[in-house]
Amino acid sequence: MISNMKISTTIIGSLLILLNVMGCVEAQQQGNSAQNEAIFAKGELGPEENFTGNAWHTPLVENDSVFTTAAGNVVFKAGARSNWHSHPAGQILFVTAGTGYHQIEGEPKEIIRKGDVIQCPPGVSHWHGASADSSMTHIYIIPNTENGIVEWGDPVTDEEFEN
Amino acid sequence: MISNMKISTTIIGSLLILLNVMGCVEAQQQGNSAQNEAIFAKGELGPEENFTGNAWHTPLVENDSVFTTAAGNVVFKAGARSNWHSHPAGQILFVTAGTGYHQIEGEPKEIIRKGDVIQCPPGVSHWHGASADSSMTHIYIIPNTENGIVEWGDPVTDEEFEN
Repeated sequence: MISNMKISTTIIGSLLILLNVMGCVEAQQQGNSAQNEAIFAKGELGPEENFTGNAWHTPLVENDSVFTTAAGNVVFKAGARSNWHSHPAGQILFVTAGTGYHQIEGEPKEIIRKGDVIQCPPGVSHWHGASADSSMTHIYIIPNTENGIVEWGDPVTDEEFEN
Repeated sequence: MISNMKISTTIIGSLLILLNVMGCVEAQQQGNSAQNEAIFAKGELGPEENFTGNAWHTPLVENDSVFTTAAGNVVFKAGARSNWHSHPAGQILFVTAGTGYHQIEGEPKEIIRKGDVIQCPPGVSHWHGASADSSMTHIYIIPNTENGIVEWGDPVTDEEFEN
């Protein structure tokens, strides 16, 4: 009788472990899901002529004559980056997730992270993208669009990306 | 001997449950911590003359003559809101977390959520804040600051906030 009770206790103990492990895995999955929940929709893949690798774009503010401002969200997959390009009135970036790179022509490549704010002056050539091993998401703001929005240049070579 | 083995198994089983529960709690805490990790620093409390309740402000882009744009991040505690105010060149809001309210004078209060983009036209009186039972965080953009930045008005009454 006592022996049977102990066997039952052992079985109940094993079941409790199993249930707990299952609950724990589920809780961790929910945590990861909430953690990774993006602020904006991923949007459409950027065109190959302007991007190397996969970068998804969602417009947030359409340019008009009242705000003279264009804004959007870009999700860069690890290794993905824009071509070199410039903005006649400059550009502001808010990094909202991940780690990436930003480089102004003639300056060293800088590492940019969630929470960083980048301002690229008017008419200056730059590129931005994810780092080699992490995705990166940023909001971009283009002010004073009456001066123009963007002028695209050449792709960022692997050598430029890696240096 | 057999009985002793069963007792040992039961004790080991109980210890495993305890260790598993501890690991699970820790994993959930880490998940919640990462989930709640804000993009920007919380910043400084907004002044009582312009806000009801607690709203923390971090400047992101200082106004200058090149970008003619001011930007910042505001975290509103549940129930907190700005006074009525207007922007001579309008304002753009990106809601990055939580749920809140935005109201343009003469229009119904609208519920705003993570991922929403709000544009308030130039010179129009509005207010924004958290909902009654949830905090709300947004980035704000003020374009064309050569026209002015903000003109503050009266506090939003509890009746205005609740209706």
